Amino acid sequence: MSETPGFPAGAGSHEPSGARRLAARAAALDAADPLAAVRDRFVLDAAPDHASGDAAVYLDGNSLGALPRTVAGRVADVIAREWGELRIRSWTESSWWTAPERVGDKIAPLIGAAPGQVVVGDSTSVNLFKAVVGGVRMAGKGCTEILVDATTFPTDGYIARSAARMTGLAVRPVEPARIADEVTERTALALVNHVDYRTGRLNDLPGITHALHSAGALAVWDLCHSAGALPVGLDAHHVDLAVGCTYKYLNGGPGAPAFLYVRESLQERFESPLPGWNSHADPFAMDPAYAPAEGIARGRVGTPDILSLLALEAALEVWDGVSVDAVRTKSLALTDFFLECVGAYVPPDRARSVTPYDHRRRGSQVSLECSPKLSASAEQQGTPTAGEVMDELIRRGVVGDFRRPDVLRFGFTPLYTSFADAERAARVLGEVLGALPEVGTGAAGTGG
Amino acid sequence: MSETPGFPAGAGSHEPSGARRLAARAAALDAADPLAAVRDRFVLDAAPDHASGDAAVYLDGNSLGALPRTVAGRVADVIAREWGELRIRSWTESSWWTAPERVGDKIAPLIGAAPGQVVVGDSTSVNLFKAVVGGVRMAGKGCTEILVDATTFPTDGYIARSAARMTGLAVRPVEPARIADEVTERTALALVNHVDYRTGRLNDLPGITHALHSAGALAVWDLCHSAGALPVGLDAHHVDLAVGCTYKYLNGGPGAPAFLYVRESLQERFESPLPGWNSHADPFAMDPAYAPAEGIARGRVGTPDILSLLALEAALEVWDGVSVDAVRTKSLALTDFFLECVGAYVPPDRARSVTPYDHRRRGSQVSLECSPKLSASAEQQGTPTAGEVMDELIRRGVVGDFRRPDVLRFGFTPLYTSFADAERAARVLGEVLGALPEVGTGAAGTGG
Repeated sequence: MSETPGFPAGAGSHEPSGARRLAARAAALDAADPLAAVRDRFVLDAAPDHASGDAAVYLDGNSLGALPRTVAGRVADVIAREWGELRIRSWTESSWWTAPERVGDKIAPLIGAAPGQVVVGDSTSVNLFKAVVGGVRMAGKGCTEILVDATTFPTDGYIARSAARMTGLAVRPVEPARIADEVTERTALALVNHVDYRTGRLNDLPGITHALHSAGALAVWDLCHSAGALPVGLDAHHVDLAVGCTYKYLNGGPGAPAFLYVRESLQERFESPLPGWNSHADPFAMDPAYAPAEGIARGRVGTPDILSLLALEAALEVWDGVSVDAVRTKSLALTDFFLECVGAYVPPDRARSVTPYDHRRRGSQVSLECSPKLSASAEQQGTPTAGEVMDELIRRGVVGDFRRPDVLRFGFTPLYTSFADAERAARVLGEVLGALPEVGTGAAGTGG
Repeated sequence: MSETPGFPAGAGSHEPSGARRLAARAAALDAADPLAAVRDRFVLDAAPDHASGDAAVYLDGNSLGALPRTVAGRVADVIAREWGELRIRSWTESSWWTAPERVGDKIAPLIGAAPGQVVVGDSTSVNLFKAVVGGVRMAGKGCTEILVDATTFPTDGYIARSAARMTGLAVRPVEPARIADEVTERTALALVNHVDYRTGRLNDLPGITHALHSAGALAVWDLCHSAGALPVGLDAHHVDLAVGCTYKYLNGGPGAPAFLYVRESLQERFESPLPGWNSHADPFAMDPAYAPAEGIARGRVGTPDILSLLALEAALEVWDGVSVDAVRTKSLALTDFFLECVGAYVPPDRARSVTPYDHRRRGSQVSLECSPKLSASAEQQGTPTAGEVMDELIRRGVVGDFRRPDVLRFGFTPLYTSFADAERAARVLGEVLGALPEVGTGAAGTGG
C-alpha cells in the first residue's frame, strides 16, 4: 500500500532520544511482566496486514478480543465429531445441553461470583431485557421508575425504555455519580455501566450498589467493559443482577453469547420475560404449563448456540493460572505508561485524554479526544478529523477504534498487550498528529 | 458393544421375501431419485458409531440436521483469518455486519419470501417474542386476546403468554382446525405451528391465514418444522409474521440462529420489544434516542453471533440448484414408503402412525405411537416403553428420537435421506418390536 497523501511518513522515520528512552523503559517493563508469557496463548503475530510490514499493535480488544490459540482446534472438533458424527447424541454425550451453566461457571470467578449464578446465551441486549424486567418484577409494588446511567452505551437505554414501557414504569437518566442522591423509594432499580464505553471511566460499583440498596432499589450492572479487565466482585458487593459480553476482554469471538448473573438469593424470585423451553423445570416434558427451572437455568431461553458457546469455552482456557488481580495491576501499569508516552509524543493541542488519571476511576482503555477544535490551527481548512486519524493509525499498524464525534479509543488487554505495544502506539500517533498543522487536504487512508 | 438384554438379535439376522421385495423397491426408488446426489454434500457415511458396524440411518434431521461438507472449512477460515488476522476490520471487510440480512435473503426463497423480509439472529424463542409483541402492537386498539395453537411446541405457548402478560392481552389456546371458527374481532393475532412437532401434522397455512385476515387478525406462523422441508409460500399467502429455526431442515448446526420474517408492508409498523443497538437507524451514532432502522434490520437486536451465523450461511450452500418443490415431492415419497414398510414389518398392535396419511396434512416426519397399551400383551410385565425402543433402535444404528410419553419420531430430510434408509429403519424397528411379547426384563441399551 502506498503512503496516504496528507500524512507524514510512517513509523521509524525518526527516533529522538525521548523515544529511545521510552522504548527502553517498555522493554524493561515487558521483561519484568509476570503475564508476558500469556501473550503466546493468542494468535497475534501472524501475517502482517498493514503497510509497515510488522504485525499490528492490536488495541481494540475492548471491541473484539484477539483469537486464543485454543479455539480453532476445539471448534473443528465440535463440527467434525460432535455435530458431524455424533449429531443429536451430542446434546447428552458431548454435554451440549449443560453448556450454558458450565460456561457460566467458568466466567463466574472472573467476575467474583460463586458457582451457580451465571448463565451464558443470547446477546447482551437480550440479557439486559431479562435483567431489567426480572428486576422490576422483584421490586416493591410502589415503584414507578428505573434509573439508567445517563452516559450509558445506547443499547442499555433503548432496552431499559422498552422494559419500562412493558412493565408500566418510567425511565430516568442519571449520571452515575448522582445515583446515590437521585435514588428514591419509588426507584425499582438502576442499570449502570461498570466502565463507560466512550471515556473508559470506571464507575463506583460498591458505592452505587450500596446507595441503591439503602433506598430499597436493586443494582443491575452492565459489565461489558469490565469483565475480564478488572476485578468486579459481584458477590462481595451484593450486586443483584448483571450482564456482560464475552467478545471483548473475554475473547470469545465475534458476537459470542453474553452472560446473565442473578444473585443466588434472588433466583427464586426471578421471573424471566423470555420463558423459553430451555428455562423450564422439565424441558422434555413438553408441558403446556410453564414452570421455571430451579437456579440460574431459569435465565436460559431457547436452544443454546453451541458453536459459539463452545468457542467461548475454549477461549476461556487462556485464563488458566491467571488472576484478575494480576490483570488489573498490569492494566493500570499499561494505561499509565501509554498516557506517559502520549504526553511525550503527542502535541497537547491535538489530543487530550478523557479517561480518568485516578486509578480508582479508570477501566482498561484510554480514550483521547482528538478534534480540530483543540488545535491552535483549528480554523485551518483540512485538519484531519479523529476518524481520519484512526484510519491512518490502522494503515500504519496501530489498531484502535473511533467513536463519533472525536474520540480515539485504545483498549489494553493485559493478557496479550505489551508495554512495547503501548509505546509504539503512542509514537505512531505522535507521528501522525505531530505534522498535522502542515497537512493540506486531510485525505485519509481506507485501512479501517 | 454387546447385544442388549431384552431384545432379539440385530439387523440382518433374517430377511423374509417381503423384506427382499421392499429393499429392491428402495434401490429402484433411489436410482430414480433426482436428489440422490445431494446426499454427497453432507457428512453422513463417516465412522460407524453403533453396534452394527454400518453408518447410521439418520432420521433425526427434524431435531438436528446433518453436517454439510461446506461448513468446517468455512468456519475454520472465519476463525483463523477473519477473526484471527483481520479481527475488528472484519465487521466491514468480511461483511460481518450485514450477515443477518444477507443470510436472511438466502433463506427467503426457501420459504417463499422476496428479499428484504427475513433477518437471522437470536433463538426461535426470542424471535417468537419479537413477532408476537410486534404483532400485538400492529393490531387494532380493541383487541384483547392472542390465539395460540393448542397443540403447539411448548415454547410458543410460554412466550405467547409472556408477550400477552406484557401487553395486557389474554391467551386462548385453540386447535388449529378450529381457528377459523374461533377468531373474533377481539383477536389480535394467532400464533400457529406450520407442522406439529409431535405428530408431524401439516396445518393449513393458506386457509388459516385467510380466516384470520377475514376477521381482522394477524397470522404469525412458526416454521420450525417446515422451513427447508416443504413449500411455505409466505408472500403468496400474505402471512404477516413468521419465525423459524435453522438447525433442523436447514442444517445450520446445533443452536444455529433463528429467523424472523416481517412482511414488507408491515415493516414500518413493526415495533420490536427488543430494540437493541443493531436495530437502530444509525447504530454507530450511539444516539441516546432510539430510531428504528428501515426495513427488516429493525428485527435485529444485539451484536450478531458471527461464528454460528456464517456456519449457517455455508450450510445453506447445499441448496444450490435444489428446488423446495423437488424436496417436497421426495419427502412425500419417502414418508409414503416408510409407512408402507412399517405396515409390512411392524406388528400393528405395537406401533401405529399418528401422522396424517393425507399428503395435504403431512409434514416431513412420521411419528409412531408405540405404547405397551396398544399391545395384546399389555398387561405383561416388562414390555419395553417407547423410550426403551428408541434407545435400542439407536444402538442398532437407526437414529430417530422419542417424545414423551410414547411417540417415536422419524424425520425425513430429502436432501440426504434415501429410500434404502427408510426401508432399513422400518425393518430394524420391526425386528426390535416383533419379538417383544417374548421380552423379559425390558432393559434397553444406553446408546441415545
